[in-house]
Amino acid sequence: MKEMENLCYGIAGLGLMGGAVAMALRSKVVSGPDGRILAHDIDREILAEAETVGLIDAGFAGAADMLSQCDVVFICLNPEDALAFMKNNMAAFRPGTIITDVTGVKRTIAESMEHELPQDLDFIPGHPMAGSEKGGFRQAAACSFTGKNYILTPLARNRPENLRFIRDLILRMGFGRITETTPEEHDRNIAFTSQLCHVIASSLIDCQDDTAITRFGGGSFEDLTRIAMINAPMWAGLFIENRNQLLFRIEQFESSLSGFKELISGNRRAELEKKLENVRCRRESMV
Amino acid sequence: MKEMENLCYGIAGLGLMGGAVAMALRSKVVSGPDGRILAHDIDREILAEAETVGLIDAGFAGAADMLSQCDVVFICLNPEDALAFMKNNMAAFRPGTIITDVTGVKRTIAESMEHELPQDLDFIPGHPMAGSEKGGFRQAAACSFTGKNYILTPLARNRPENLRFIRDLILRMGFGRITETTPEEHDRNIAFTSQLCHVIASSLIDCQDDTAITRFGGGSFEDLTRIAMINAPMWAGLFIENRNQLLFRIEQFESSLSGFKELISGNRRAELEKKLENVRCRRESMV
Repeated sequence: MKEMENLCYGIAGLGLMGGAVAMALRSKVVSGPDGRILAHDIDREILAEAETVGLIDAGFAGAADMLSQCDVVFICLNPEDALAFMKNNMAAFRPGTIITDVTGVKRTIAESMEHELPQDLDFIPGHPMAGSEKGGFRQAAACSFTGKNYILTPLARNRPENLRFIRDLILRMGFGRITETTPEEHDRNIAFTSQLCHVIASSLIDCQDDTAITRFGGGSFEDLTRIAMINAPMWAGLFIENRNQLLFRIEQFESSLSGFKELISGNRRAELEKKLENVRCRRESMV
Repeated sequence: MKEMENLCYGIAGLGLMGGAVAMALRSKVVSGPDGRILAHDIDREILAEAETVGLIDAGFAGAADMLSQCDVVFICLNPEDALAFMKNNMAAFRPGTIITDVTGVKRTIAESMEHELPQDLDFIPGHPMAGSEKGGFRQAAACSFTGKNYILTPLARNRPENLRFIRDLILRMGFGRITETTPEEHDRNIAFTSQLCHVIASSLIDCQDDTAITRFGGGSFEDLTRIAMINAPMWAGLFIENRNQLLFRIEQFESSLSGFKELISGNRRAELEKKLENVRCRRESMV
């Protein structure tokens, strides 16, 4: 395989994440004379914009025209669109292409590709833990990768050298820490760190109809609800797809919340203080 | 009354908030030849440190020695300590002193002072909406006032010129917006924007005993739980003192959370997406 900086990279879906991937590739990876970044999107205006500023070398309204040229492809679509895209375009990928995705739930796509993908294509499921409450290509610059987490859920069939390549590429793009795990473990943990947090933030806003309440804000409320400026279609899809794990996490959280409520309503100050002290220690040990 | 920059200011309690008040007074207010900043604390080491760096002009281990010299006094103690301090030191304040506090629950202290304070003293209850998960004097520089909210819950007996003075002083110290309201309204709203958020953050940590979960973090979990690095004695006190308002807010939140749970478990994607869209709009209208 050619050097990382001289490959042809394709991005399917030039939204917030696709745009951020393109920026990282352009600024940190694709420096060789043969290196190219191509993108496919249904929005021709965005493609033209990205081409004009030199972020991509060429834009494609049709996926197949792009895929036939790529060594590496990032699928940067919403979960259900990503799976459909893979299935519909399987014949269009070049043999030997390394494919990865960025979707927030991994079990369905990993299982499906493990069995359905032709042997000459290698799909390595991934999840960059970066994002922004502001969506779309034009916000991509606000989505920093520097030092962020990246989760990979490799398939048994992945070729070791391709997995090594993707790991190197991710680090070169600026991410700080890669965790390899199973799709099941990913979905279980992500239900907590990501989806539960979005449900909580949304519930906090849902139960407060006075928008002038921010006169009483000191930062906590603002920090807890920033992610309530949510990409509704995408998160509704993630919640539903991962609903068993998410419901389990919501119930765990509800039970902890009940515990606090009991201590507060029972006026049990000493126990409350001790519980908060434990919380403080545990949070401080999370790095 | 003399000009703001030439008054003698006293700070009772040189912790995070007392230290931040001293810094704001020093850098933005007390610029005249007669202006002075005094502080009282039980920690003599902290007093010496603050004096050495020129943040305060003099430190006092005994409250009375300081209070007898002050034109304006900031009580920067935990809620129950603040009320006890006022009661125990009433005779030590100079006649005409303007007193204010920074405690996070206002009904008890406001009611108590409305009736018990001598007529020649003026207590204006306040709540600067600023803080940090890191406590103590040595973290005071991290507690910025710039542009932050400040709530005042004036007493009927407050002299209009003193209230004007405090408002001017607060703005001079860097705060961005002052809201005047009743202690009841304050406690009702703060139960939501501040206390409920701290209970939620603490519950999120309480229900997760795997401290390596942060490998799966993408920012949301970290943002939602930063305030779980909590000052346990202070917040236990605030939760208990304001428990009726807080319990009401927790129940409102639980009910919203149940609503989301129902849509997710019922696989009701379209309704879920619509609800999230409403949440997004409402949060965006909160400024």
